[in-house]
Amino acid sequence: MARQARNWLIPSALVLFLCVFLLASRPFYSHSNDALPEAKVAQSRCQAPRKNIWADLNDAEADGLLEFLYTKPNDLNLTRVDNATTWDNHIALVEVLPPNKTDALEFLQSNAAPQRWARVVINQGATDKAGIVQYMVGPLPASEDTQILPLTYLYNSGRNFVRNPLPDFESIVGWFSDLGEEVSDMIKDLLGEVVNPGHIANAPPLLALARPAAWENDTISSWASINSPGVRFDAWSLMAQGLYCRFTISGRDSSKWKINEWYYNGIMYNSTESFRDAWKSGKVEKLPPNRDGSWTASEPLAKGLPDRDMNAPVMIQPEGSRYKIDVEENFISWMGFEFFFSWMQATAVSIWDVKFRGDRVAYEFGLQEAIAHYAGRDPMQVGMVWMDSLFGMGFNSYELVPGYDCPSYATYLNASFHQGESTITRKNALCVFEYTADSALQRHTTPTHLTISRNNYLVVRWVSTVGNYDYTFDYIFYLDGTIEVKVRASGYIFGAYNQLERTRTEHATELSKRGEVPEYEYGYQVHDLVASSMHDHEINFKADLDIAGSENTLYRVSVEQRDHKYSFEDFSRRTMHLKHTPVETETGLDWPTNAGEMFVVLNNESTNAWGEKRGYRIAPGTGMGAPTRLTMEDSTALAKSAKWAERNLWVLRQKDTERKSTSEYNSMEPKDPLIDFGKMVDGEDVRQKDL
Amino acid sequence: MARQARNWLIPSALVLFLCVFLLASRPFYSHSNDALPEAKVAQSRCQAPRKNIWADLNDAEADGLLEFLYTKPNDLNLTRVDNATTWDNHIALVEVLPPNKTDALEFLQSNAAPQRWARVVINQGATDKAGIVQYMVGPLPASEDTQILPLTYLYNSGRNFVRNPLPDFESIVGWFSDLGEEVSDMIKDLLGEVVNPGHIANAPPLLALARPAAWENDTISSWASINSPGVRFDAWSLMAQGLYCRFTISGRDSSKWKINEWYYNGIMYNSTESFRDAWKSGKVEKLPPNRDGSWTASEPLAKGLPDRDMNAPVMIQPEGSRYKIDVEENFISWMGFEFFFSWMQATAVSIWDVKFRGDRVAYEFGLQEAIAHYAGRDPMQVGMVWMDSLFGMGFNSYELVPGYDCPSYATYLNASFHQGESTITRKNALCVFEYTADSALQRHTTPTHLTISRNNYLVVRWVSTVGNYDYTFDYIFYLDGTIEVKVRASGYIFGAYNQLERTRTEHATELSKRGEVPEYEYGYQVHDLVASSMHDHEINFKADLDIAGSENTLYRVSVEQRDHKYSFEDFSRRTMHLKHTPVETETGLDWPTNAGEMFVVLNNESTNAWGEKRGYRIAPGTGMGAPTRLTMEDSTALAKSAKWAERNLWVLRQKDTERKSTSEYNSMEPKDPLIDFGKMVDGEDVRQKDL
Repeated sequence: MARQARNWLIPSALVLFLCVFLLASRPFYSHSNDALPEAKVAQSRCQAPRKNIWADLNDAEADGLLEFLYTKPNDLNLTRVDNATTWDNHIALVEVLPPNKTDALEFLQSNAAPQRWARVVINQGATDKAGIVQYMVGPLPASEDTQILPLTYLYNSGRNFVRNPLPDFESIVGWFSDLGEEVSDMIKDLLGEVVNPGHIANAPPLLALARPAAWENDTISSWASINSPGVRFDAWSLMAQGLYCRFTISGRDSSKWKINEWYYNGIMYNSTESFRDAWKSGKVEKLPPNRDGSWTASEPLAKGLPDRDMNAPVMIQPEGSRYKIDVEENFISWMGFEFFFSWMQATAVSIWDVKFRGDRVAYEFGLQEAIAHYAGRDPMQVGMVWMDSLFGMGFNSYELVPGYDCPSYATYLNASFHQGESTITRKNALCVFEYTADSALQRHTTPTHLTISRNNYLVVRWVSTVGNYDYTFDYIFYLDGTIEVKVRASGYIFGAYNQLERTRTEHATELSKRGEVPEYEYGYQVHDLVASSMHDHEINFKADLDIAGSENTLYRVSVEQRDHKYSFEDFSRRTMHLKHTPVETETGLDWPTNAGEMFVVLNNESTNAWGEKRGYRIAPGTGMGAPTRLTMEDSTALAKSAKWAERNLWVLRQKDTERKSTSEYNSMEPKDPLIDFGKMVDGEDVRQKDL
Repeated sequence: MARQARNWLIPSALVLFLCVFLLASRPFYSHSNDALPEAKVAQSRCQAPRKNIWADLNDAEADGLLEFLYTKPNDLNLTRVDNATTWDNHIALVEVLPPNKTDALEFLQSNAAPQRWARVVINQGATDKAGIVQYMVGPLPASEDTQILPLTYLYNSGRNFVRNPLPDFESIVGWFSDLGEEVSDMIKDLLGEVVNPGHIANAPPLLALARPAAWENDTISSWASINSPGVRFDAWSLMAQGLYCRFTISGRDSSKWKINEWYYNGIMYNSTESFRDAWKSGKVEKLPPNRDGSWTASEPLAKGLPDRDMNAPVMIQPEGSRYKIDVEENFISWMGFEFFFSWMQATAVSIWDVKFRGDRVAYEFGLQEAIAHYAGRDPMQVGMVWMDSLFGMGFNSYELVPGYDCPSYATYLNASFHQGESTITRKNALCVFEYTADSALQRHTTPTHLTISRNNYLVVRWVSTVGNYDYTFDYIFYLDGTIEVKVRASGYIFGAYNQLERTRTEHATELSKRGEVPEYEYGYQVHDLVASSMHDHEINFKADLDIAGSENTLYRVSVEQRDHKYSFEDFSRRTMHLKHTPVETETGLDWPTNAGEMFVVLNNESTNAWGEKRGYRIAPGTGMGAPTRLTMEDSTALAKSAKWAERNLWVLRQKDTERKSTSEYNSMEPKDPLIDFGKMVDGEDVRQKDL
């Protein structure tokens, strides 16, 4: 069962995201890659101008690394994954440790390849304080010079360790099962109808969905919502039943773990015993069951539309692709753009050394983190916040659907990851395609002629399915040199159990006193007993622009109202003008009200033919309004783990030691995270620096 | 020449937008419709469920109306357009006066068609105070009951007349020609090289582009920029030469008109004489000429890209259209949406009686106005503001290019207008098509299956080419019920003559004193002597939503940070919640910072199956950030003519007398416009009212 459990939750992801309750027997969330078709590879290959130094370890490198770790004596005290018990150390994952920019830039100038190093993540079970520990190993391939060093230089906490109950995963599952047994009579009475409603063999009858929690005083304490798995398993996040429990895991001895409280129908019970006493004496008023059914099926909503069965318009590529790909080096070229890309397990796809018409415009664009921060009035929703790099936005990138996720003529590429001691390949996980917008890039009608240009663009896309959510991520390249990152969210919401009529009654009096309309405060009712739970999505991308060289300055160009008397007029006029202000020190910026300010990265030392500085504007992108920052400052649930989410745009100096805005393990110790982004913003001068 | 002049500028457009200078001989901006191909009509026709009561007058109605006006005695004192002189009254245009909503709603319920009325716009030259006067004539077809009434009920000024020098257009052209003769030696010396640089026969050698101006104290006073027409005529808005003059037109006697000032190279000359004196004595320092050339050609920018000549991806419609059109009634149906549309000369396309799955969700969506408000430091740019309904955003909708403006499989429809006493048809001016987005509408990967839906949408599109600008307007309909209006601007910018190096020198000292960087304050240098001129675009659409009936309420749903101690926790938590606040009285709203507020139009009396009120959210749409409001409040150039531009969204009660937010003649009397939007916002209760 150990292997299954590890496959079920990715090893690094155990903050008790999904716990199988009552009758946990086998993983229900697993992906088989066997049945996937072969990746379709572009007919138009090309040769990258140089090696991709950011690429993940290939299989030979990974194998060599494992051999090195197991043959050369070291202090890691590793046990092979297949033999590891709860009280052993084993390898969670290995992947490339990308080169420092300092070294990479040298390579880009001289072609002197930087050393290859690996990041090795170990599940440490062999000590009392179980957790996750990280090392850097290199240079590779292994030689006399190869070292194993604590990976601390990327983490401004100075640590390479986070505490985590992962090694005790089986114990936790077992403990929950025992607990399930203990309360099964009560649960069956209260929730009977929604216990394994799909009658699926070997399926978990109920799910205990716990919200993230951190060690504090040698204890992890978290609330779990008891959800029905739904009839088809896929709507579990809509299947809250209004029953919640708080549990405590202290140390590694499961006999000391306990359920602290039960919360049901608005009433708190301070122990399982007091909950049972109330239930036995008939004092627990049953909530209506939140039943799964056809309403959770993601089928077309409207029936009977006569034209629905006709084929919709479809994009074709009559002459083959106009982009070129070097599949070995993950290099893409299209209409003057050239760039490399790489996969990481936590953060999926980054692009590197982005050139437009021969000039490097960016060293790196890379996804860092995606947060969903909820609010609500039950113990689950109120503290729920997911930081999805923990679950692996790269690792959880599954097969794309040709003709739906991307055009059928797109090029589909595989991604591979080294987890445990094996290689896991996600077939057709990335697509590359050119598309033609429904409107022109440029047009003008004149009396004598008309000019018009099609708006073609190149998309590099993958989808990360992290539990209930599917994020579709795009890097998009436009003919005018614009580069856009775009994120779309789909999947199932994380619903809250809610009775709208009850809410209205309860709140009506209080609210009407304040002259407000009595409404549920955290969302809208979307089914009989389910309310949408309001939540903020914050997605963080790193953009390391290099405009005509690495030394750049960020200007705020503001559009300001102006009262001015011009020399050729005899009155003062109300008009407007531009004001250019360089940002002097590291800071966070917000998208301005009324687009009244533009953020432009310039190189002060480089001017174009007409004397203007060369630069790139940073804009909110094309979507629904401007992307948002977190509604709250100092969120209780986030603590210090994601200070980047509080502003829209940050400008910082590039440093080899500040490569990432966050670590995927930040949510495990939010009050003392591996990387505290807030500490990076430390007043350094950012004028004509590498940003 | 009278006819030509009238064709060249649309009759109502004479705020001296383009004046041919020196040798004005014939119009250079005219469109021939003869060569256009026949409109392609959808293979999928349908029958509208009822008559389109908003449609423009058909030819029979227009002919009957003209006959009525010329045969039945009246006080209009009309002269046939072909015979009209400067001192006659003639018909500028006739079009439908759409029914009042009160009557239309009755029709939609009972099918009792409202009366047909026409709006008749007359160029009034037969009096000392020349101008434009409007009448309403109906019911049509003409009968004993048909009346001619001043059209005042739509104008909160109470007037149906605006003063305008239009009847004197020929005199103005003649006066400018004479003036050109008078100064031709000086002009040829200063600007010789750019005088008719294309050597095109019968072309105007130079253009005097005047900015809008209004009558004040019986006088129109405006600045004009002397521009080169460019070698191909289409880049005239980039061809400023740094020479400007201010002229005054007082009354109707051209002998009393005069040039007040010349402004050249930063120096003001108080009369033509003083300018000539300075020139003769060699005191006028010549500015370098702003030459047209290949740089103004809108050709592909990049050459030599190897894949450029391959065909790009293209959308096809393999099984024909899934939308249905009633071409006679201008009715469209697609995937549960049904609506009518109509053309107006000033404001192009409105859509009416919009239903989604059988329920009316909107009575009307209609373009009202498009403003471009400039700023700059020369006499032209500093006061330049265009309100494009004046030029006719409907009338200036020309042929769309299949495969570029819209897919080649789109349905292309003609538009017709009654100007003067003729019918002018714009072939293929509107396109309707379905498109498939490059990404899915919905997707979710589960362990056992995957669901995904294509994102198809319907577009209704036209392009208004108003001088240098091409606006592409879309009404877009999505499968989830969303309706979007979208506007894209292309064409040529209105450039300012600017010498960047000189700007730097002049301003450097002053700016560096204030610690600022010396930059041009109004744009960026885009060529040797041309700077982009900063300008705000404001586009106003009317949305008359009817959600489950006409009585609706607009709620502000705000996402607020909240500190709260929940009953099941022992500490106060920083989280967030929603707050619903109805808007009580007519007001303007701005898109909120950080998307921290949603605007939702609800019907308080109608709830869905789960007890939530039915409604539509009003959001900024999909584009670059949120659409902006005007940077300035109380712009000098706009005065009271466009108060709507100062906020993003206005909520007002629907009134038959407040049908439009502006009149196309507002820019002729900005201080006392026909419609002052500001006066409409007068504190009326908007809770559960027709909004």
